[in-house]
Amino acid sequence: MTTIDLNCDMGESFGAYQMGDDMAMMNVITTANIACGFHAGDPSVMRDTILAAKAKGVAIGAHPSLMDLYGFGRRRISGERPEDLEAQLIYQIAAIQGMATALGWPITHMKTHGALNNMAAEDATLAKICVSAIRTVDPSLVFITLPFSETMKAAEAAGLTIACEVYADRRYTDNGMLAPRQMEGAVIHDLQQSVDQVLSMLRDKRIPTIGGGYVPVEPATVCIHGDTPGAVATARAMRQELTRVGIDIVPFAKPVAGAGTALRPVWTEGA
Amino acid sequence: MTTIDLNCDMGESFGAYQMGDDMAMMNVITTANIACGFHAGDPSVMRDTILAAKAKGVAIGAHPSLMDLYGFGRRRISGERPEDLEAQLIYQIAAIQGMATALGWPITHMKTHGALNNMAAEDATLAKICVSAIRTVDPSLVFITLPFSETMKAAEAAGLTIACEVYADRRYTDNGMLAPRQMEGAVIHDLQQSVDQVLSMLRDKRIPTIGGGYVPVEPATVCIHGDTPGAVATARAMRQELTRVGIDIVPFAKPVAGAGTALRPVWTEGA
Amino acid sequence: MTTIDLNCDMGESFGAYQMGDDMAMMNVITTANIACGFHAGDPSVMRDTILAAKAKGVAIGAHPSLMDLYGFGRRRISGERPEDLEAQLIYQIAAIQGMATALGWPITHMKTHGALNNMAAEDATLAKICVSAIRTVDPSLVFITLPFSETMKAAEAAGLTIACEVYADRRYTDNGMLAPRQMEGAVIHDLQQSVDQVLSMLRDKRIPTIGGGYVPVEPATVCIHGDTPGAVATARAMRQELTRVGIDIVPFAKPVAGAGTALRPVWTEGA
Amino acid sequence: MTTIDLNCDMGESFGAYQMGDDMAMMNVITTANIACGFHAGDPSVMRDTILAAKAKGVAIGAHPSLMDLYGFGRRRISGERPEDLEAQLIYQIAAIQGMATALGWPITHMKTHGALNNMAAEDATLAKICVSAIRTVDPSLVFITLPFSETMKAAEAAGLTIACEVYADRRYTDNGMLAPRQMEGAVIHDLQQSVDQVLSMLRDKRIPTIGGGYVPVEPATVCIHGDTPGAVATARAMRQELTRVGIDIVPFAKPVAGAGTALRPVWTEGA
Repeated sequence: MTTIDLNCDMGESFGAYQMGDDMAMMNVITTANIACGFHAGDPSVMRDTILAAKAKGVAIGAHPSLMDLYGFGRRRISGERPEDLEAQLIYQIAAIQGMATALGWPITHMKTHGALNNMAAEDATLAKICVSAIRTVDPSLVFITLPFSETMKAAEAAGLTIACEVYADRRYTDNGMLAPRQMEGAVIHDLQQSVDQVLSMLRDKRIPTIGGGYVPVEPATVCIHGDTPGAVATARAMRQELTRVGIDIVPFAKPVAGAGTALRPVWTEGA
Repeated sequence: MTTIDLNCDMGESFGAYQMGDDMAMMNVITTANIACGFHAGDPSVMRDTILAAKAKGVAIGAHPSLMDLYGFGRRRISGERPEDLEAQLIYQIAAIQGMATALGWPITHMKTHGALNNMAAEDATLAKICVSAIRTVDPSLVFITLPFSETMKAAEAAGLTIACEVYADRRYTDNGMLAPRQMEGAVIHDLQQSVDQVLSMLRDKRIPTIGGGYVPVEPATVCIHGDTPGAVATARAMRQELTRVGIDIVPFAKPVAGAGTALRPVWTEGA
Repeated sequence: MTTIDLNCDMGESFGAYQMGDDMAMMNVITTANIACGFHAGDPSVMRDTILAAKAKGVAIGAHPSLMDLYGFGRRRISGERPEDLEAQLIYQIAAIQGMATALGWPITHMKTHGALNNMAAEDATLAKICVSAIRTVDPSLVFITLPFSETMKAAEAAGLTIACEVYADRRYTDNGMLAPRQMEGAVIHDLQQSVDQVLSMLRDKRIPTIGGGYVPVEPATVCIHGDTPGAVATARAMRQELTRVGIDIVPFAKPVAGAGTALRPVWTEGA
Repeated sequence: MTTIDLNCDMGESFGAYQMGDDMAMMNVITTANIACGFHAGDPSVMRDTILAAKAKGVAIGAHPSLMDLYGFGRRRISGERPEDLEAQLIYQIAAIQGMATALGWPITHMKTHGALNNMAAEDATLAKICVSAIRTVDPSLVFITLPFSETMKAAEAAGLTIACEVYADRRYTDNGMLAPRQMEGAVIHDLQQSVDQVLSMLRDKRIPTIGGGYVPVEPATVCIHGDTPGAVATARAMRQELTRVGIDIVPFAKPVAGAGTALRPVWTEGA
């Protein structure tokens, strides 16, 4: 049976600020990429998101970013030494891994956020830094990467397990890259067309390109948007339609609950 | 043979900003409390400090704080929900534990920083939150606590291993608390008097109080200041004097090097 | 004719994060307290909020806070030196005053935010710091203060113009303070009761207390909540009801448009 | 008589962190560019730096930056909307202008910091944003710009007063740009050679280039480094040597003390 995973960025609220409707989205997706506090998220949001995912059986992973709360990790920052960026990634992955393990719901993967994800897809050195950070903390973590990206190449060269991520609502160029949003026709607004694109990827193992050709692909997960208007409804419709035509929606890496140590805080014990 | 540990806050530089002379101090102390990025420190500083400690055989631990870079963690912040503070501590301990383990030099303990350390010493609920955070991430971590503090009581009640911390250059009140700095005679400026106070604590298991009495104590570690003028010279003199009279300066928890996974970054391989 | 002002905290979005529905609220209120970037707001949000207020004829003022984005300025921070807090207030007031003047819509007042507002109302030294900050930047700015507060006393002693702020939906204690939220009956949930309380304050110049008595008051402005569910609808209903019974809703300080220098950016000129 | 100004970045400490020796440098320079809190500096540091400059008669200006405390404003951030960057600059300039005016020592100019300074020198749109921000807050402020830069062109086109900044210890390319630091011979390490380069610029109104030619220049100010080892001694030697050969060291814009409103805080009055 054909299977696919639906992944979505989660845990992007911060302090008094809300972002997206994570609790609703948890009913639709199979894998959550949880912000680690550098572009969004805070320790409380991380804990609540981990626990919500655990309650729903949703797999979770680290979603590290450049250090940019104001820009929500969407701005490109250059001039960083490679070893500094690597340390930032290690810090973020370690923080969420330790918290998730303590809560009995270990992380299964890592996906880089926003500008970092785009920069590393294009730049071999940045791609290797991301791979090195994963290997440093836990080489068993799956790395979500874009097809034909430098990150995919670096991950494969280093022997990491990858999960190839595709978009339902974005067209691709002839070299397998996402067509820039501002390009005519780059964004698919029709649900059926989005479903058809995913089905083509899943069944034919190829992506129809904006130039009329095809590039090969082995999709493991579909990127679900969480912070656009109607995000949950769109995601739910996508899931229903894929399910209807016989696709099984399951996480690319099955989460395994651990005992966890954080069963009950000391400070609530007693009276 | 009588032994004692010398601990110092380390890794408190941030970005372009330097704090203290960590590399020199590493030759004097036996245990380093490493800032985790909330009041000081950044991921690169954390990595460099861990590696420097490993090179010198200095034991390391998490040194989490309230979220307060501007105030260097010295301002009291109230109105935080207990579960939020607990999540912040878990995040910080997990981040440094994951990084240290990956670098082959696991952490041995936790010591809270600045205002949090003072607040938790006085407040039973905060003390329990600190204890709960340690138990959540790793119950084998030693908790550095002040004598007669709420943190010591909470740690003992929860079965954590504690390391009782004393000051060489501060006087104590009759109930075993540090006399406030602004109190006449609260700070000892003479090295020999500082050494004598430590020796009294070590040999007689009691602290001479500012009121002329004594309180019992089982000192495990002496707090060494790192960011005052002449800090390294003072620490070195203290260590020499204690060694001269036959005290063995060793960490309260012996660090054990691990294999580590971060032997060589992928991104520097090849050419 | 009896008049009153309706003031609301505005401009509390930050980067990608939205807070409240400022554009809708601008149609209801007469005075906006604009966040200055320390607990919320960023320079772009400040500019957009100033321009929206100008378009609607809504008076604006500085809404400075303790430095606490994570806690939204609601946590009490202690251990700050008075001169440091004063500098932080001067910085924030100067930043928004300069921006607002350049945009041709000068600020008319200052209202402190959240924890700082509560702390300064209770603490004479903090109250004097707030007053000093206003006097330093512009002694003609009106200071919104709570009745019977230290801030009101300090402002009056220094000769500042004050605008006394009352709540429609909160009960008062016998000494004229807001009854704590957690106290039984402290919050008024019924609109008509809220309106009646405001009318009593306006017509009888006194506040009915939770103990059954009265304290005198000269209300200049009613605090409108902006970030609660149904905030705009509640505010609109309040305004309609006050208007219906003949109260004129006008700002306590009439804004005067200036020429402004920021008519058209250089960088959009030409082609 | 030939005159020149010596400018230096100042007020770059933050909280507990010190940067440079501002008090010593104030005796050497004639113009201070004061950090505004985005890459360095905080409100207290700003106030103290303004007051120190006033005491020494040193002219001051705004030294705004990209929002990057961790990177000290040295990292390039892209993907910012022009209007957002403009708002950030207006905010920073307004904050320090308001504070400086209140302290009776108004700012005379603006100089952009680090990565922003380099980016705007190369990019016409960014250059126009900087110019627009100055014009918005105060068109009478002088803009310190590099020769042949886009900022200089944009400032001249908009009718702003510029102060052309040259380096004593950096070589220039044949098109008048600073030769990249990593280029062989780009940095001048010999004091006499540095002095000679400045004298050539001042007397011959031209810069000797690394290619052996010359480009014309009208230098108004020499950039003095503040945070390198031996910075104060180097600056003092440069000043002495220039003075010895008859160059008059004066600010390019003479500061005029104002009355200021911040003569004495209310909160220290009385008992």
